Amino acid sequence: MTPKEELQRRVNGLQDRMKADDCDAVLVMQNTDLYYFSGTLQSAQLYVPAIGDPVLFCRKSIPRAARECPWNIIPINNYKYLPDKIGDFGHKLPERLGLEYDVIPVSAYLAVKKAFPNAELLDASNWIGELRSIKSPYEIEIIRNAGKTMADAFTYVPELIRQGLSELAIAANIEKVLRDHGHQGYIRMRGFNQEFFYGHFLSGPNGCMASFNDGVTAGSGMGAFFPQGPGERRIQINDPIYLDYVGVFDGYNIDQTRLYVIGVLPHKLKYAFQVALEIQETLLAQIKPGVVASDLYDSALDIADRAGLTDNFMGYGSERVKFVGHGVGLELDERPVIAKGFNVELEPGMIFALEPKFVIPGLGIAGIENTWLLNKSGVEKISVLPDDLGTIPY
Amino acid sequence: MTPKEELQRRVNGLQDRMKADDCDAVLVMQNTDLYYFSGTLQSAQLYVPAIGDPVLFCRKSIPRAARECPWNIIPINNYKYLPDKIGDFGHKLPERLGLEYDVIPVSAYLAVKKAFPNAELLDASNWIGELRSIKSPYEIEIIRNAGKTMADAFTYVPELIRQGLSELAIAANIEKVLRDHGHQGYIRMRGFNQEFFYGHFLSGPNGCMASFNDGVTAGSGMGAFFPQGPGERRIQINDPIYLDYVGVFDGYNIDQTRLYVIGVLPHKLKYAFQVALEIQETLLAQIKPGVVASDLYDSALDIADRAGLTDNFMGYGSERVKFVGHGVGLELDERPVIAKGFNVELEPGMIFALEPKFVIPGLGIAGIENTWLLNKSGVEKISVLPDDLGTIPY
Repeated sequence: MTPKEELQRRVNGLQDRMKADDCDAVLVMQNTDLYYFSGTLQSAQLYVPAIGDPVLFCRKSIPRAARECPWNIIPINNYKYLPDKIGDFGHKLPERLGLEYDVIPVSAYLAVKKAFPNAELLDASNWIGELRSIKSPYEIEIIRNAGKTMADAFTYVPELIRQGLSELAIAANIEKVLRDHGHQGYIRMRGFNQEFFYGHFLSGPNGCMASFNDGVTAGSGMGAFFPQGPGERRIQINDPIYLDYVGVFDGYNIDQTRLYVIGVLPHKLKYAFQVALEIQETLLAQIKPGVVASDLYDSALDIADRAGLTDNFMGYGSERVKFVGHGVGLELDERPVIAKGFNVELEPGMIFALEPKFVIPGLGIAGIENTWLLNKSGVEKISVLPDDLGTIPY
Repeated sequence: MTPKEELQRRVNGLQDRMKADDCDAVLVMQNTDLYYFSGTLQSAQLYVPAIGDPVLFCRKSIPRAARECPWNIIPINNYKYLPDKIGDFGHKLPERLGLEYDVIPVSAYLAVKKAFPNAELLDASNWIGELRSIKSPYEIEIIRNAGKTMADAFTYVPELIRQGLSELAIAANIEKVLRDHGHQGYIRMRGFNQEFFYGHFLSGPNGCMASFNDGVTAGSGMGAFFPQGPGERRIQINDPIYLDYVGVFDGYNIDQTRLYVIGVLPHKLKYAFQVALEIQETLLAQIKPGVVASDLYDSALDIADRAGLTDNFMGYGSERVKFVGHGVGLELDERPVIAKGFNVELEPGMIFALEPKFVIPGLGIAGIENTWLLNKSGVEKISVLPDDLGTIPY
């Protein structure tokens, strides 16, 4: 259960941003944001006025909301009653009302617009994204533990990888280990149309297959209907075996990638793996409060260029993606985005994955990914598993 | 791979609806709809003019789209170039342009509005929802096989349920069995904020816990951050053990619920289970082409009333949900909704789950759920597992 002081601090952060922009209220509607500001994840909307306590308008479950959420809870079953209920509660109706434009569907937006015909609607998603990008000591403690649990679970992985088994068969065993360690299963993503299921277990040339998702890899998946993640390909000697997995423990995401091989990794991939480690080391030396995200991307690209791997960096050719890292938290795709054009200064409390990776056509993918916390004094590794290439006996 | 004739039939269905409403084009943006109309699930938008072939505007992966999609494929990386590209292709810019208001975020809607400043935007989600609610012979064959695979996987379930193990520990084993049978893992839902992970494995009073999701049950889940599905409670003798599980094979969802017990089910739950079976039997006798969905809900409620279980039907007290069934397909929450006020006639080709269930406070939940196909001649069971209460030796 999230402590009230923690929720109050988050609400205050949102209210500060609202006041600076003359916004009278934000109506929080999306699951993750609801949980973040209210401590409960119910069928509800959280009305956050610029001044005063939030009110949770809840359809169900009200008993559950009452156990988890310190704010006033008002039963409601339709947006159209919101203005009346807000009035009942002594609040003036908002003239400027913020909504999460990045995640709420058009139908919900139009319903709110109809319910508040005199309000000017505006986009509150930047405020929420910025606020959530800085993790509190309370969150950092949860995320540290999540990182340890993920590393612990991954000590069981090498013994599950065997020549001749399919990607999917091995992935099913890894998923069971993660679940037995308390993995929540469901992975929340904020981006429209983004989907993810545990991880990308990709072997050999399957590591070169991109798809709809915003990441570097997709893999074969199981068919056109789910074109990412493990598929039917069987593991062979000398394959690069690439595991980009997400651990979700106590609600928080840990993103990490490790590379394994049964036998000997092809020279080009071994070289690419070394360059990826070099990029990671260089970025870590550069990261401190105030460093600009896009400068980190440029540094990474410089190293890729000097290594002769420009066309292979973060995808191949026209399918390259233009980032080298991203924030993680309650969702897998948070801020900051460490990307071309993302001119934001990193701040203490940010937690992000760095994932320099290279796609070598015909052979597969090599790279590393860890989740890091930026402290005042420097960077702390959250995904505490060793970075080495995992060599599996056969 | 979806055959071109199948995709053409779907596109024609959408175009018929567009023409009847003077809509010039629909821009399909959401994953499942993209896959349904194009055969590929990439980072793309499908432009469907009222007359002529669709065009897939694709960011990535273009090679993958080219293998799976028969329509013309045009590279693009931003909405703002859409009007130019549509013009290049010889199409007049749309005066009335349809979008999926039920699923696309406000930010995407505003970007399209900016790119097409002279177009009137309108909601195409009803057309797509109606069209997708009638499954083709091609889809029915895939769904029949999915039902058989799900039933086969569930023959392994009883031996996994053991006294003293936690819900989560048993669920982890069931998930592995499903995955080994080719379960896609990720479960697509259309409704805003809906989330689902494999199933609700709920024991004893955990079956009475509701939450944010639109279903009857939620369960304890693992904490406030994921308040549904299995939790830490350990299975006891005489517990109702409730498994509402979703199988996703070849992209299609099968929804089924079975009840198990180690020992003897408490009398009230046994009675409720019998009433649920009676509701199922009564509805099946009533269902034929032309029957109205809300009449089925009323029939179910009548039986619950006569059995003295009104307050327990589909939840308890104020947390009751007002439906008894829902369509399933590429998404878990499709049309028709068999619900109060849903005055739609059922048609051949519709595939839906019927799930009469009763929550008995303090004891748990009892009920049945199967997935059914409506043929011209009557109803066919898709989830071919026997309906009996599963008694597990101890």
